[in-house]
Amino acid sequence: MKRLPLILASASPRRAELLKLLRVEFSVLPSDATEVAHEHLSPLEVCQLNAHLKARSVAKKIPDSLVLGADTLVFLDNEILGKPRDLAEAHRMLSWLQGRHHQVVTGVSLIHLRGHHERIFAVSTDVLFHPLDEEHIRHYLAKINPLDKAGAYAIQEFGELIISEISGSYSNVVGLPVEKLREEFAAWEAEV
Amino acid sequence: MKRLPLILASASPRRAELLKLLRVEFSVLPSDATEVAHEHLSPLEVCQLNAHLKARSVAKKIPDSLVLGADTLVFLDNEILGKPRDLAEAHRMLSWLQGRHHQVVTGVSLIHLRGHHERIFAVSTDVLFHPLDEEHIRHYLAKINPLDKAGAYAIQEFGELIISEISGSYSNVVGLPVEKLREEFAAWEAEV
Repeated sequence: MKRLPLILASASPRRAELLKLLRVEFSVLPSDATEVAHEHLSPLEVCQLNAHLKARSVAKKIPDSLVLGADTLVFLDNEILGKPRDLAEAHRMLSWLQGRHHQVVTGVSLIHLRGHHERIFAVSTDVLFHPLDEEHIRHYLAKINPLDKAGAYAIQEFGELIISEISGSYSNVVGLPVEKLREEFAAWEAEV
Repeated sequence: MKRLPLILASASPRRAELLKLLRVEFSVLPSDATEVAHEHLSPLEVCQLNAHLKARSVAKKIPDSLVLGADTLVFLDNEILGKPRDLAEAHRMLSWLQGRHHQVVTGVSLIHLRGHHERIFAVSTDVLFHPLDEEHIRHYLAKINPLDKAGAYAIQEFGELIISEISGSYSNVVGLPVEKLREEFAAWEAEV
């Protein structure tokens, strides 16, 4: 069995760092696919569809490689919290999240276009926020740039000031569920 | 009931940040107490004893205040992993921790010396590390300074590269169990 060259279809340096944990060689070629957010899809379905679109856009250029696409979203009561447009929206998002549980879902697609083969899956991690008042939220927002972050926060940047508990994969919240991905790579190799 | 002035007997800026989550006013006066590590004590007992010694050393100077002392330690199979002496020891510690569960325990003491009143407690959080090889460990150690960190790691600094799962309080791993502390403050106020 020959291992396919692996391409990470993501510009996120955090995802690249996480992928290195799996001891696989890979190159990076970010996708230019547009993310979607259909209202009739479940959180896991939205993330999987976006991961598929990202992987597919890159796989079309390199059909002989194995392409990994991923999409991470924050869901509160099944509603998507995307990247806030401005600081006021970031503040609103954190006001919704405070004191409550929400889900961080990462969808992953592995595509080998030439081989007509795809594996697609999603992992959800439950996150509980501390109770936060206006001042706590302002204080947190002064420490990070929330505008490029789904849900207006990042666990790896002063996460302890907002997060009380996490149930499930930690790396999944950062952007790639490495435990599940390890299993999927093994399953892929067993199949092909 | 008059609320006592609160003193944080710790130089850790992370602990000060976490304490702010509880909406309490406080001052900082680091303790100069020497930490102990008696072999016949359990992890929770060691942390509680150290927290007590830290709080007490400051409370002696300010007996009319409520003094908070805290001590966070990393335990692997009930053995304490302190701060590594050098990079080689840091590497050894991470080699022990990789692929396994360990406990991060924070002991907390609240002392009002003039009132002859103390509350003391400890919170343990379970942490599971990713499987890591030599190269992963070297890569992680190149990103952080492990020498001032118990167990040679800090969750808030590239924690996703080493940590797979956390069970329990997140802030406890950083150095202060804010959820339990909130309860204890409420209990203290109900008592006095």
